[in-house]
Amino acid sequence: MCRWLAYYGDPITPATLLYDTKFSLVEQSRRDRLAGGYPNADGLGLGWYGNRDEPGLYRSTAPAWGDRNLRELANQIESPLFMSHIRAATGTPVEQTNCHPFRHGRWLFAHNGFIDDYFLLRRELLLAVDPSIFSNITGTTDSELMFHLALTFGLAEEPLAALERMAGFVEATGHRHDVAEPLQMTVAASDGERLYAARYASGPVVNSLFVSADASAIRALYPGDERLQRFSDEARAIVSEPLGDLPGIWREIPPGSAFIVQPGKDEHVAFTPAPPG
Amino acid sequence: MCRWLAYYGDPITPATLLYDTKFSLVEQSRRDRLAGGYPNADGLGLGWYGNRDEPGLYRSTAPAWGDRNLRELANQIESPLFMSHIRAATGTPVEQTNCHPFRHGRWLFAHNGFIDDYFLLRRELLLAVDPSIFSNITGTTDSELMFHLALTFGLAEEPLAALERMAGFVEATGHRHDVAEPLQMTVAASDGERLYAARYASGPVVNSLFVSADASAIRALYPGDERLQRFSDEARAIVSEPLGDLPGIWREIPPGSAFIVQPGKDEHVAFTPAPPG
Amino acid sequence: MCRWLAYYGDPITPATLLYDTKFSLVEQSRRDRLAGGYPNADGLGLGWYGNRDEPGLYRSTAPAWGDRNLRELANQIESPLFMSHIRAATGTPVEQTNCHPFRHGRWLFAHNGFIDDYFLLRRELLLAVDPSIFSNITGTTDSELMFHLALTFGLAEEPLAALERMAGFVEATGHRHDVAEPLQMTVAASDGERLYAARYASGPVVNSLFVSADASAIRALYPGDERLQRFSDEARAIVSEPLGDLPGIWREIPPGSAFIVQPGKDEHVAFTPAPPG
Amino acid sequence: MCRWLAYYGDPITPATLLYDTKFSLVEQSRRDRLAGGYPNADGLGLGWYGNRDEPGLYRSTAPAWGDRNLRELANQIESPLFMSHIRAATGTPVEQTNCHPFRHGRWLFAHNGFIDDYFLLRRELLLAVDPSIFSNITGTTDSELMFHLALTFGLAEEPLAALERMAGFVEATGHRHDVAEPLQMTVAASDGERLYAARYASGPVVNSLFVSADASAIRALYPGDERLQRFSDEARAIVSEPLGDLPGIWREIPPGSAFIVQPGKDEHVAFTPAPPG
Repeated sequence: MCRWLAYYGDPITPATLLYDTKFSLVEQSRRDRLAGGYPNADGLGLGWYGNRDEPGLYRSTAPAWGDRNLRELANQIESPLFMSHIRAATGTPVEQTNCHPFRHGRWLFAHNGFIDDYFLLRRELLLAVDPSIFSNITGTTDSELMFHLALTFGLAEEPLAALERMAGFVEATGHRHDVAEPLQMTVAASDGERLYAARYASGPVVNSLFVSADASAIRALYPGDERLQRFSDEARAIVSEPLGDLPGIWREIPPGSAFIVQPGKDEHVAFTPAPPG
Repeated sequence: MCRWLAYYGDPITPATLLYDTKFSLVEQSRRDRLAGGYPNADGLGLGWYGNRDEPGLYRSTAPAWGDRNLRELANQIESPLFMSHIRAATGTPVEQTNCHPFRHGRWLFAHNGFIDDYFLLRRELLLAVDPSIFSNITGTTDSELMFHLALTFGLAEEPLAALERMAGFVEATGHRHDVAEPLQMTVAASDGERLYAARYASGPVVNSLFVSADASAIRALYPGDERLQRFSDEARAIVSEPLGDLPGIWREIPPGSAFIVQPGKDEHVAFTPAPPG
Repeated sequence: MCRWLAYYGDPITPATLLYDTKFSLVEQSRRDRLAGGYPNADGLGLGWYGNRDEPGLYRSTAPAWGDRNLRELANQIESPLFMSHIRAATGTPVEQTNCHPFRHGRWLFAHNGFIDDYFLLRRELLLAVDPSIFSNITGTTDSELMFHLALTFGLAEEPLAALERMAGFVEATGHRHDVAEPLQMTVAASDGERLYAARYASGPVVNSLFVSADASAIRALYPGDERLQRFSDEARAIVSEPLGDLPGIWREIPPGSAFIVQPGKDEHVAFTPAPPG
Repeated sequence: MCRWLAYYGDPITPATLLYDTKFSLVEQSRRDRLAGGYPNADGLGLGWYGNRDEPGLYRSTAPAWGDRNLRELANQIESPLFMSHIRAATGTPVEQTNCHPFRHGRWLFAHNGFIDDYFLLRRELLLAVDPSIFSNITGTTDSELMFHLALTFGLAEEPLAALERMAGFVEATGHRHDVAEPLQMTVAASDGERLYAARYASGPVVNSLFVSADASAIRALYPGDERLQRFSDEARAIVSEPLGDLPGIWREIPPGSAFIVQPGKDEHVAFTPAPPG
């Protein structure tokens, strides 16, 4: 199982969420708390929206806990919207191109989970990717392929519907090959304006996903930090697992639902896979 | 342009050819002499036949000149048949899975050259790979794809014919997409029994390839080395460019031809691409 | 805490101990069982005695579980005497030169533990290293420095006494700087003829160390392996923690003692630090 | 020989100098033009002054031309003062801690050149480093050691004098050991306020160093770039070798001299090594 987090709100240094709490993302790279206590140390990534059209991307195959460049970067930059991922490989090699988040134009995408029997299904799934974006696939993971299927199915126009079509297509393809529970996923996607998160699995076991209750929740994580106390109510963090033990801060995002963080009121809606028509 | 070498003959340490001559393969990683004087430093590999069914494989993204593990390995092991490759990337990422040689069962494969307009052709070429070996493709290079096309077209049964079908298929696919000169290649392939090398290009520029004249040629490279003086006449090295300046040692393998090193007499035959029927 | 193992006996592939048991060394890289359940994933090494004067060395900063080169090498080579180490860094960077084992001529050395307040003591300890071997230190760990202190104090001539002098010198230096418990160590050292292991700590907490009871113990680990059943009685494995759960196989090496595996009868003696006279 | 550049002036993206000219620093990583045409591909670094007290640091052992993270970072950040270095190792390992620039507090330091017979002199030079900063040395290069000698000899208080004392001390130490020409160096140092560069060698061969003539020189490098046309006259780049072929842009900094870029008028002064009194 991988772990990821995504942040939307007043500009902060990513280090705030990657390093500065008891169970920060980097601490989770040593071992998670909700998925068996194993390391998530097969590569890492940080994607952030800054002053350029494209978001910035830092990816590395080193375990996050020992990556000095990640620490530097996470402390130097500030961003109002970023996502970070630590990988636990499920069959594809540990390589930079297999690290999340993946990027296409303004879009970033991160995933925790897997396509079951991926090597059986991979060829067929690859064929469904729009040929015009095929060469943007530089690695070999199921996750990057899911991203490009979502792009193929309209991520830029109808983000959640495209994610549902992707999930539906993966499930339909799997079922055709007698894979009983083809998909397990929590995903984050963003175009730099909104942050989309979804939690879904074909079977009864669903990877964990949480959202910070509101900005006051984030403030409570850092009682001594003057600056974070002035956070607007827009600020949200979505995480694979809570960054600390304070009660009341993290709300579970239920299986089969999606959460959209955006200017104005957030949305929480059902997530129902359906193959493209 | 990449550089490679392959050896067949009495068991030697790979270091003999990788390190111990003036223009050894590792020296060529700093800069070649026949392709513009640029570094070949986007990864390296050594594949060798030892005591196991499968050949051993060491691959690394480090420049060869600074890779301490390569030096260790090349000095510790001995092998009667090995190939080594240093990469100059032509568009695909510097990653371990993109390093040559590639392996499938008993087969090893290395390549210098490129498929022109690869990102245009890649999807279509991938589709032609036998689905049963599709998941053996772990990287994203044109080279690894060429290997799997050759495997698809019968490499195990008719090695040279399969390489010709692969080359013909790449050319036909390219021409269909208006790529004028789709293929540039010198390749090495082996099943552990024989060593196959071919030199071919769709256009007038053809990457260089040489074979050592005979075992006496190899002996002459190391006049002071007692042991190498006892080499049998079977010993051959095939190289992208000569490892030294001694005249008479290296014979050019002409464009459009293939060379087979094997027990008994070597063969030198024409290489004529032809798409599978 | 790091983990290591060392083997002496009939030639085997290192994979036998690194991969082929339930709690093999590579499995311990995900998490150990006797030191808190944390990963040992800050680099790895394999040193083996083969056909050359110097032992071979493979070292890498990748987590062992994902290192494809280690897997290849551990399956291809055979050796009657090797040691392998997986690192959990205690303050010095994750780099290849900081990976164990360390080598000097015929000697290999691996360590689990630490010098307390190392950065306070490092300069003074470095100064005690024989200037003639000073430049053989290429990394920055306490472990490599301990090895060079042992070499300085006569490792080649009186191995155990030199290790005791090293430990005594570290303790004396620490105490002079008010470090209460300066040393925590299990170490392996070999000259290719004998295998020396010692277990010691300045304080009450001592890292774990075990030796296989006898060759029948190793045979029992692999009941289905024809070949290992023919092992001679000389074969021994020394390990930071047991490779499996079978009772009766692993004997603890008590704190403050050393174990020597050698042709003929093994020795088990007291280990008593004493600074060089 | 390594290559480096340093920039002081209006904030720009480092990519402007690292990528966007014909003979940019990253192009020099494939091969330099003034030092034999060899690659400078044994690691790289970028240090930049941003919004934190400490400058940011990105270092990697990958050849610069293929390092995707460097490209991202160099395009995302903006800085009024940065330095970047590409390494050609001269005896010490290719490792992240051996990559320039080195940092201590607010200070950054980069070096092209070498201490001759470094392994002979290293121990003695190390001993001269102020024990209070000794543990800030995390690598093993002569360059990092030169930086810490300069810090020991007063870099923070009298930057140029401290660099002269460092150079003098290295020379005196070398001469004591019969090293004829102990030092070869171009160095860059900065505290975030000023940029110090010096060029010196003990013998007749001196590594190259250039400074952009004035801001109009930088503007001329990018005639089509609106934004750079508005550069203030403070802007300066100091480079190991010119980034392009335009005449009149680059002025050689003569051997045995130093150049200080600072608010107000720059200074060009003699550089005369003298061991600390």
